[in-house]
Order: sequence, then C-alpha cells, then structure tokens
Amino acid sequence: MSITVEEIKNVLDWISEFGKDETGGMTRLLYTESWMNAQQALKGKFEELGMETCFDAVGNLKGTLTGTEDGAGTVATGSHVDTVVNGGKLDGQLGIIGGYIAIKHLFETYGRPKKNLAVLSIAEEEGSRFPSVFWGSKNLFGIASEEEVMNIEDIDGVRFTDAMHQCGFDFADGNPSLLADTKQFVELHIEQGNTLEMEQKSVGIINGIVGQKRYNIFLKGEANHAGTTLMKYRHDVIQVYAKIVTEAVAAAKEVGDPLVLTFGKINVKPNVVNVVPGEAIFTMDVRHTDGEILNSFTRKVEELMKEKAKEEGVEIEIDCWMDEKPVPMNDKMIAVIEEACKEKGLNYRIMHSGAGHDSQIIAPRIPTGMIFVPSIRGISHNPAEDTKLKDILQGIEALELTLYKLAY
Amino acid sequence: MSITVEEIKNVLDWISEFGKDETGGMTRLLYTESWMNAQQALKGKFEELGMETCFDAVGNLKGTLTGTEDGAGTVATGSHVDTVVNGGKLDGQLGIIGGYIAIKHLFETYGRPKKNLAVLSIAEEEGSRFPSVFWGSKNLFGIASEEEVMNIEDIDGVRFTDAMHQCGFDFADGNPSLLADTKQFVELHIEQGNTLEMEQKSVGIINGIVGQKRYNIFLKGEANHAGTTLMKYRHDVIQVYAKIVTEAVAAAKEVGDPLVLTFGKINVKPNVVNVVPGEAIFTMDVRHTDGEILNSFTRKVEELMKEKAKEEGVEIEIDCWMDEKPVPMNDKMIAVIEEACKEKGLNYRIMHSGAGHDSQIIAPRIPTGMIFVPSIRGISHNPAEDTKLKDILQGIEALELTLYKLAY
Repeated sequence: MSITVEEIKNVLDWISEFGKDETGGMTRLLYTESWMNAQQALKGKFEELGMETCFDAVGNLKGTLTGTEDGAGTVATGSHVDTVVNGGKLDGQLGIIGGYIAIKHLFETYGRPKKNLAVLSIAEEEGSRFPSVFWGSKNLFGIASEEEVMNIEDIDGVRFTDAMHQCGFDFADGNPSLLADTKQFVELHIEQGNTLEMEQKSVGIINGIVGQKRYNIFLKGEANHAGTTLMKYRHDVIQVYAKIVTEAVAAAKEVGDPLVLTFGKINVKPNVVNVVPGEAIFTMDVRHTDGEILNSFTRKVEELMKEKAKEEGVEIEIDCWMDEKPVPMNDKMIAVIEEACKEKGLNYRIMHSGAGHDSQIIAPRIPTGMIFVPSIRGISHNPAEDTKLKDILQGIEALELTLYKLAY
Repeated sequence: MSITVEEIKNVLDWISEFGKDETGGMTRLLYTESWMNAQQALKGKFEELGMETCFDAVGNLKGTLTGTEDGAGTVATGSHVDTVVNGGKLDGQLGIIGGYIAIKHLFETYGRPKKNLAVLSIAEEEGSRFPSVFWGSKNLFGIASEEEVMNIEDIDGVRFTDAMHQCGFDFADGNPSLLADTKQFVELHIEQGNTLEMEQKSVGIINGIVGQKRYNIFLKGEANHAGTTLMKYRHDVIQVYAKIVTEAVAAAKEVGDPLVLTFGKINVKPNVVNVVPGEAIFTMDVRHTDGEILNSFTRKVEELMKEKAKEEGVEIEIDCWMDEKPVPMNDKMIAVIEEACKEKGLNYRIMHSGAGHDSQIIAPRIPTGMIFVPSIRGISHNPAEDTKLKDILQGIEALELTLYKLAY
C-alpha cells in the first residue's frame, strides 16, 4: 500500500500538538515539558511499530526496526525535534515523522530489512533556548564537551544542566552513541528557501551544505553638517558602505550560484537627515559550498572594503567572527537518492543547502545524504512555514526507496 | 582706536553668561528666563552707547544709533539671540555683539553716521524650543502667521503663546516692523562648515544661501533567508539603496560645488545578519545655490531611484517633504563688502552658505549681505563650536568698514 497524503497529515497533526503555541506556531524548546512529551510520544509511536527504542545520555531518541542480518549495521534517518520560538510545524520534525512513515511502509510491504532501520529524534539543533547549537548531533559522536553547557542559562536564568537533569538526562552517564553501528544516514528536511518552488521541483537532493562566514565591519569617518561641508571635504561612511555593497554584490553575482552574499544589518551614527554620517557598523554574511571559492571571494571583498575606505579617508575594522567550512554530502548517497527519485519518477533536482543542518555534523563521520522538500514562498522559522502535502509525499517516497535500497 | 581681540573676548564672555549650561555649552531657548535676561542686558548695553532701543511685538530687539540726515533711513546688522540646546557661544549672538562692537567703534571714531545705524537681536531662528523656525525674522516683515504658533507647545507642554505672554510680548499688539525704514542689512555669522578653514581664509563673503530639498524614501522588497535564497531570487532593499547612493553621489560630484548630497539616515528591517533586508527607509538632503541646477539634479536622482528599485523588483515611494528655494544675496552688498575686505587687506573669499540664516528671510525684501568667519573643524551646534579671535576680528573689521561705507 502506498503512502498517502492523509496519513502524512494525520501524523504531522498529531506530533504538532506538542508545543503548539497560541499564535498557531510551534515552540518546543530543548528540555521543556512539550519537548519531553514529544520525545515520549515518539518513543511510544516507534514501539507500536515494534521498534526497539533508546534514549542516549542527553535525550536523543532512536527507534530501531531490527534487521535480519546480524552485524550488518544500521541505516538511519531522522532530524531534530526542537523548534525555534514561534516556529513552524515542519522544520526538524518532518524528518522524524517522514522517517517513521517511510520505515512503517517498508516494514508493512517488505517485512524486516537486512540491516537495521533506525529513525532518530535528535534532541536539539536550533540553539533557541540556550546559547548552544547542534547539542543533539554532536552528542551522537561524543564531540560535545560538558564545558560548553556547564555555565549557560536560558532567558529565565534556568541552567542548562538543571533543565537536562530535570528531564532525566545526564551528560555524564556514559550511554553508548546511538549511531555506533550506523553505516549510512539520510535526513529529510524542508528547504527553508525558494529555489525548489521557483524551479517547480518537489524534491531536492543535497550535494553539500554551504560554508559560511560572518563579519562585523566598523567604519569611522567624520560627522559633518550636511549643508556646509562640501563633498570634497567629507569622510562619509555611507558613501564607503554603498560602494562596498554595490561592488561586492556585483562580484558575487559574477561568481554565480551557489555563492550568496548578504549585507543584512546597518547601523549609522548619528542617523539624522542633515548630518553626514560619521560612523557605521554593518554585517556581511557569505556562503558557498566550495571552501576555496568562499575564501578567495572573501579575501577579495576584504581588500575591496579597505580600498573603498581608504579612498574616502575613512577608518575600517573588519571582524570575521564566524568561519564554518562547507560540508559535502557523500557521493554514493547522492547517487542512491537520485536513483530512487528516477525510479519513482519524482520531480527532483540536485542542489546545495544554504542553511545548516544536523547532517553537517554527521556527514564528516558517516556517509550521509539529505532530501529537501520545497518551502512555500521560502518561509521558515515562522508559523506560516508550509509545504504542499503532495510535495512532502514525494520527499517521503524518495526517502522510502533510498532506505529500501540501503537496508533491504 | 582699532578693535582689539581683548574687547571681542570680553563682550563675548559677558553675553555668554546668559544661558551658559553645566556642560560648558549654551542653551538659550526662546521666551525662557535666560533668553529674556540676554535681551534685557543687550538693551542696556545698547543704551549705554546712546542708542535708542525698541522691542517689537514678539521680542525682536533693535538698538539704533540715530543718524544726522533725517529720512535717510537705516543700515542694520545683527543676528539671532537664541541657541540650540547645548549649543556653542557663537552661532547667532556673534552677529549681535559683532554689530554692536562695530557700531561702537564707528561712533567713537567718526561720530554719528548720516543714516541711522541699527543692531538687531532677533528673537528666534533655531526652532529649538517650539516646532517653528525664523519666528523672529518673519515678524520683521509681518509674514509670520498667528496660526503657525497658536497651538504649538514645547517639550514640557508649555504653550508657545503662554511663554510669549509671560515675557511680556503679544503677537497681536501691532508694533511697527523694526526694519520699516531699513535700506540695507548685513549679517555676521560663523560658517558652521570647514571651507574657510580648509582654504585658510578668515572671512567669507556670501553670494547666496542654498536651496534645500529633503526626502524620505521607502523601499519594500522581500525579507528572505540569507543562506537559502539565491542571489537571483532576492528583492534586497540594501542592494537598491547602495546603488542609489553610489550613483547619486557620483552624479553629485560630477555637478560639483556647491552641490551637496547627503544620505544621512537609513533604517532597515529586520536588520539582522542572516536575513536579506526586506524594508528600508532612508533620507536624502540636497542643496545648491542655483534652484534650476538643484531641481534638475533631484529630477535625475528620482529617476535613478525608480530605475534601481525596478531592476531589483523592489517597491519605492519617494517623498520630498522640504523644498526651500535658494536665496541670492544682493550684488551691490556683495561688492561693498568685498571693497571693504580689500581696503582692509583681509584674507577673504566669496562663497555660498550651505545652511539657513535669518538673512534668507530678509534678503528677498531688503538688500542684504552676509559675512562669515571660519568654524574650527567645521563644528557647530556643540559646546566645541569655536572661531579664532583673530578671525572674528577680521570679520568684525569687514562689517565695520561695510557699515561705514553704507551709513557715513
């Protein structure tokens, strides 16, 4: 029996009760009651299917459909169970319930797989409650350190470790990694962008997650009277800023996709109509799937910034405070997913991910692939986050056949 | 006996006691106690010199040294007595005490003039207490309307009319204009810019006050994820803004002095590092002494703005909320002042004013000239506002000889 959109809708509606907020959005923060209830409910759901379930030391949940070949290892899927504050009902949990539905149908159709088939409900990815991200996926590999979370608190002053203990978890209790015998990992996720929608595709096969650099740039010129200071006597930070943005954006467009360049924030002093701006701080966010292209582009833009500042006699300070390397997906995994899409006749394309995901922690350690479904108007982290059910269906079908190929 | 810097310093220090604030700046707002005390003290000072004094219906003060030729009319000088909040000790009152010192020396050297010689202490120019500017100079010509001030209040909720009545003035009492028989007017003022300083000049002869247009520009694009939205799918308001600023500034520099163009204010939404900016509001301030050049330039920039917005699929709304025409000074007055500067061997240049002054209200009605002295580092409206005493001396000497040529 094929997966239906009704089934997807039912399971989505059921899981979305945990953390539903007043505005119609989702707020399910790490180690809160709604988070704990969601994990317990998923545990029950997995067990109903005959899966073995297990929490690790920090609250990552795994449901395993045991395979018939002893020692053949596990093929895992899943995503994160936490949300941002007032987020949508797909970011994260779609990968859990999509994995669950795919495995359920495989089991009902073909019986037990050769390899184990597991679905992970990863504890945390968003960093929405505490100033820490990828806590869940990092703990799948023992690469999170206790120091990271020892002294952090949420906005209400609740300590991370207290919240964790209250849910019955203890970083130090020595549970084995849930991915210890996992041979492949596939994550289903919403795109959170508009590329699939613009190109009228239902499924994206991810070839890599972008590397990302973020900057703060400080400009110090001279605030002057807008009427009495001739153009030639100005040190106008906005003139410098505008040239930097214009030329850097043109250079980015020349490099082409998947390079993205964003000047998201600008604060000017004194920021009044009749004074030449004397100071500015602005941000730059640059991403590309190829680390070398990313670095050569940012080197070029840094030079451009200094040059433009110098031309106007403006001081500049460039602070690169985030530098995350790109993470390629596994070529064989990409090939298997593409094969699955072709066989199913799905409307897919190969693409990169411009946002971070649990898979970026997993991919360097286990052969990993990702499947995207479109986000309507690219909206995410918002109650309006949505995907057509027929597209979600295609995403789960791609996942189902991929898991079949890997585990049966 | 020549004017000395000591004398200038003494009179400046004396008048600066009225409204001196804790931070070393000046705060002398219209119809406050310090304002009233300053006007009364000036009245006394003028009378000591044997001047006839008179307040008009709104508190403009005139001191007149009566001339010997009956009906020959008056040559007047002066400036405004009010200051901004925490302003400097020269903006405005320099023109009053400079006029007083010049007339005093002329009287002491040459006795009574043929024409009357008058010094005006104009009630208000800055608009710092109430939302109304040029209240003083407009009342010199009966062009201020009572409606303008009937319903306005200061920041503490004090009504304009109550404050005026408390100082003993009443807009409606029908005093004759203080400038009724005035044939020429000259205003001495600080530059409030850095042109004289940069060009190492002590005196500026003003040929005109700039026309000025101010705009609010609204841009509405689409806020998107900075990582997942390809460059070609963006409607980024900052890209539009940067192109507008870059191209408009280049066009302004091509037009050349005295065109000045300032993008002083920019507010972006949501203004965060990892979101493509979806909305922006920014300002534009453009000034030129030639109204036609000013208008043809702004027409061009308005077209440019629309074009750049269209290129990126961004909506634009352009609101020109201030459009003040340029005010030329009187050619004969410019010639007389220049003659005076030459005869005195002063270090002068002819220039325009990029800021507004009482003279822009007076010039269309009475032949008017202006004399500038340099502002150190161009600073004004700030306790650090200053001018070298030797430069002030040259400015007063230019004024003295100009008044001599016109009145003796």
